[in-house]
Amino acid sequence: MSKTLSVNAGSSSLKWQLFEMPEEKMLAKGIFERIGLEGSKSLVSFEGEKHEREIEIIDHRQSVLLLMDELIHFHLIQDFREITGIGHRVVAGGEYFKESVVLTKENLKNLKSISYLAPLHNPANILGIEAFQRLLPEALSVAVFDTAFHTTMPEEAFRYPIPTRYYEDFEVRKYGAHGTSHKYVAAEAAKVLGKPLEEINLITAHIGNGASVTAIEKGKSVDTSMGFTPLAGVMMGTRSGDMDASILPYLLKRDDSLENAQQLIDILNNESGILGVSELSSDMRDLEVAVSEGNEKAILAYKMFVNRLKKYIAEYFGILNGADALVFTAGIGENDTDVRRDIIKGLSWFGMELVPELNVRGANGIISTPDSKVKVLVIPTNEELMIARDVENFREAWFKQILEKG
Amino acid sequence: MSKTLSVNAGSSSLKWQLFEMPEEKMLAKGIFERIGLEGSKSLVSFEGEKHEREIEIIDHRQSVLLLMDELIHFHLIQDFREITGIGHRVVAGGEYFKESVVLTKENLKNLKSISYLAPLHNPANILGIEAFQRLLPEALSVAVFDTAFHTTMPEEAFRYPIPTRYYEDFEVRKYGAHGTSHKYVAAEAAKVLGKPLEEINLITAHIGNGASVTAIEKGKSVDTSMGFTPLAGVMMGTRSGDMDASILPYLLKRDDSLENAQQLIDILNNESGILGVSELSSDMRDLEVAVSEGNEKAILAYKMFVNRLKKYIAEYFGILNGADALVFTAGIGENDTDVRRDIIKGLSWFGMELVPELNVRGANGIISTPDSKVKVLVIPTNEELMIARDVENFREAWFKQILEKG
Repeated sequence: MSKTLSVNAGSSSLKWQLFEMPEEKMLAKGIFERIGLEGSKSLVSFEGEKHEREIEIIDHRQSVLLLMDELIHFHLIQDFREITGIGHRVVAGGEYFKESVVLTKENLKNLKSISYLAPLHNPANILGIEAFQRLLPEALSVAVFDTAFHTTMPEEAFRYPIPTRYYEDFEVRKYGAHGTSHKYVAAEAAKVLGKPLEEINLITAHIGNGASVTAIEKGKSVDTSMGFTPLAGVMMGTRSGDMDASILPYLLKRDDSLENAQQLIDILNNESGILGVSELSSDMRDLEVAVSEGNEKAILAYKMFVNRLKKYIAEYFGILNGADALVFTAGIGENDTDVRRDIIKGLSWFGMELVPELNVRGANGIISTPDSKVKVLVIPTNEELMIARDVENFREAWFKQILEKG
Repeated sequence: MSKTLSVNAGSSSLKWQLFEMPEEKMLAKGIFERIGLEGSKSLVSFEGEKHEREIEIIDHRQSVLLLMDELIHFHLIQDFREITGIGHRVVAGGEYFKESVVLTKENLKNLKSISYLAPLHNPANILGIEAFQRLLPEALSVAVFDTAFHTTMPEEAFRYPIPTRYYEDFEVRKYGAHGTSHKYVAAEAAKVLGKPLEEINLITAHIGNGASVTAIEKGKSVDTSMGFTPLAGVMMGTRSGDMDASILPYLLKRDDSLENAQQLIDILNNESGILGVSELSSDMRDLEVAVSEGNEKAILAYKMFVNRLKKYIAEYFGILNGADALVFTAGIGENDTDVRRDIIKGLSWFGMELVPELNVRGANGIISTPDSKVKVLVIPTNEELMIARDVENFREAWFKQILEKG
């Protein structure tokens, strides 16, 4: 029995979950918000209770110290050394990291060397990793990459039709994201369907504030909607998804408020998607309230959102030349019955039909009719558990190695 | 009986075809190349013979004069006044021009006012229009827009998920292209299928050096792969098609040879696609020779080309929620049996199967098996004839008006 932390460090936040492994029992979870900013706070929840406190958090290193404090304070651990493993979510693994790795000095050095692939995310991930390594030097430290699951894509899927030198010299290619989630729900879906993952084709739709769709052939990702960065693919809460790149120089010329291409990309990441079209909110729940009130911009944003998801799902039926099931997951995918209904209604030709009584908020399992040629499932994602599992896998191998050396 | 010219004026070329209308008989065709450049020449072909001559061509105005000379020289006309109508292909009609129009002073003024939507193409089209209006002031002058057929797209298809102000203030939206071709082959396909166009759904794949795929619902374009400009969509001879826009600022930062976003867009338009990946040629015929010789970059480019077409075709099965037929047209679509075979093979799940003996170069009609749930057709495109037909439609209304005024 050991306690494992799953950690997701963002630029100004640190999310965590504590598991008892290998029992896969989630003991507690929490988040530190607004690290290094005014109004920082800590949220901890366990056994159905939520605890929140405002507290000054100067940097990631301090947040890690505070996390240990919280764990002791709430009697979740008695001693730091109970934490034997920490799994870190890392956004970009590039072509180098094809699977999770123990964060040896060598691997950490290599990870730092590819920070330019995710200049906003990877440096924050690394801050979290280093803070834990200083505080818990004996715990097993593992990096779990958002991109690793997609490294099985064939070259015709991951290459862009641009001059080869941009790939060879600057590593411009499709990397994808949400890999941990797509991998997890695919494995769970196979269990629900009662078939070996290696014998079926799945389309997984991770639809949260960020969203991506993946084509999974016999357990391997063969294409995914996010691209070189998480800007590409379907429409999201604040991200545009796919665009005609010509729009950039056109708008740079026409809109005097724009100074450079990066500024426009920031707008495409942070002020577009549902927010940009509805001019109301990036949150699907707010949008649907406005839709029900007849707000025209909200209705358009909702239609576009469903439209772009339908396109990618249909596209991956093409890439896979047919699929056994479509799997919905993440905030919207798990809870938004309207989005699921409208997608499936618009793709009935593909052999999918929902049972309205099963298409409920928080569904878990098959929601399509027995006659559906293609099954439709809802599988709650659990990236934190996947991360803890990866740590556990290494822990076993690691102990075995120590015992063998014995 | 009247003679009508179809004209396609590019920045340094002018293509033409002469028709006898309403018989739709093509009398001759030709092209002026390298207008305003060294080594300019004129090509004329009729009755199976080709005539080429090198001749200095200073500008578009002179090319029009030379065209009349050629027509008289080859006894295609005896007098300028035999040309009673001229149809001009215009690349961008914006949201203003939803169908072909007679080029009155008012319409020409409005056309000039939207040149910023296609800064390379529309000004050249306008040069051609004005040159003919000066020389043949009494001929009916009609603009036929590449975008007009796509103005029926619903808003959720043509809008981008970006801030609304970019649409409202700067008209950033999907316009599409190749509309004349998609419209023509859809109408012809309906005839071949023996069904009213208004009762069927079609996916038309115009695959030439430029390429686009269109979803046509009951005769109306409801989505198309090209976007704000013809850069977007599938992979093409020299164009990238869809890209993650984030790649632009990333490459601008990393590649010292790039000075601004427009320069990179030019590379995406002119040095990408088949040419960029294969590093050999933009021409599919050259590529396939290299593929047969086992050239790895050529094989990758070919696989990517087929992959991107499959994606869009599958996507439009989604948008249409099923289609009656898939129609191939244009240079590659009409003649490349390998591309057609590999697309259909990769989408067999959709209910399409080819008859190998019918999948020949220059096929015309149905090439799928009688059991195919979705029919596959090859229809040679004829944009020039569509343009002449549009002129003819106006000519009839125009004469009627004159007679009524009598």
